[in-house]
Amino acid sequence: MSYLKERILQDGRVFENNVLKVDSFLNHQIDPQVMVEVVKEFERYFKGKKITKVLTVEASGIAPAILVAEAFKVPMLFAKKMEPSTMQKSSRYETIVHSYTKNISTKIIVSKEYLDAKDHVLIIDDFLANGQAAKGLIDIVNQAGGTVAGVGICIEKSFQTGRQLLEEMGVDVYSICRIASLENNQVTFVE
Amino acid sequence: MSYLKERILQDGRVFENNVLKVDSFLNHQIDPQVMVEVVKEFERYFKGKKITKVLTVEASGIAPAILVAEAFKVPMLFAKKMEPSTMQKSSRYETIVHSYTKNISTKIIVSKEYLDAKDHVLIIDDFLANGQAAKGLIDIVNQAGGTVAGVGICIEKSFQTGRQLLEEMGVDVYSICRIASLENNQVTFVE
Repeated sequence: MSYLKERILQDGRVFENNVLKVDSFLNHQIDPQVMVEVVKEFERYFKGKKITKVLTVEASGIAPAILVAEAFKVPMLFAKKMEPSTMQKSSRYETIVHSYTKNISTKIIVSKEYLDAKDHVLIIDDFLANGQAAKGLIDIVNQAGGTVAGVGICIEKSFQTGRQLLEEMGVDVYSICRIASLENNQVTFVE
Repeated sequence: MSYLKERILQDGRVFENNVLKVDSFLNHQIDPQVMVEVVKEFERYFKGKKITKVLTVEASGIAPAILVAEAFKVPMLFAKKMEPSTMQKSSRYETIVHSYTKNISTKIIVSKEYLDAKDHVLIIDDFLANGQAAKGLIDIVNQAGGTVAGVGICIEKSFQTGRQLLEEMGVDVYSICRIASLENNQVTFVE
């Protein structure tokens, strides 16, 4: 069993509406040992692929993404959720990401300076549920004319539609931990 | 000369109103090599201190903070700028941070579960200008009754008042790169 799965069973808490709270070790307080173990698994799975850049979206994707970028010795790029004062509108890719959990739509942006048609992009994020954040990041890679090398996820809610959405787009999705169900406040992993 | 200084001279761009754009390697696209070198310097400076936790604020502090946390083998905690749906109001520390650059005030929050009076906290951030973000993080550590072990900054605008503000609070501030002036679109470091 992966270290992440052990920690989910030990420290994760399940709330109503299929919310899994892992903010003691993954997305508020972050245990570096969890990150190190997660990154080893991403490295093992994606090492045969051509990767020139790691892409995520702020904020909780940044910690795993920088460590994956360090492992592959390529730059990490994170999409921003607000308009930085020094980035001109004409010089960026942007897309809208809808969060079903929070029921809000957010614009995410990436500077055109840092992503182009030569890039092979590994997308990293902490969670995959409905797949909207990953889809938004794929859209940004496509706007740049780049290639999606794959999507690496820490925790996938496999009972939601994200993986199917991404696979139908032809994307290679690797999740370290796939959750089959959170019913009755119990975490059940995909076999 | 530190690697970060070299990269600022090579890739940084100066804009009006003392804006230094370093988003090709520090806070949008992030070069892992810059991070590794920066973290070595933080490790060297703070290694004699008792540190139980690394604290930063989303988003651009997260990359250096997770690597510093990995180096010191302690958890990293990042203050959030929005109210997460799974965090109850009664169970968090919060403070208001004013950004002079963007002229907005933002509430930042940390769960009370992850910070208490036993903690010795190293605060890490990418920039120090007016010191408002660091001051907000210090306020959160104080609310928890914890001890500020120090503040580690990648780039300090030494012509602004942040360092003085923090030093008057009795805080040990270490900045890898101290900028004396950005006048005439020229980066001048503190000797």
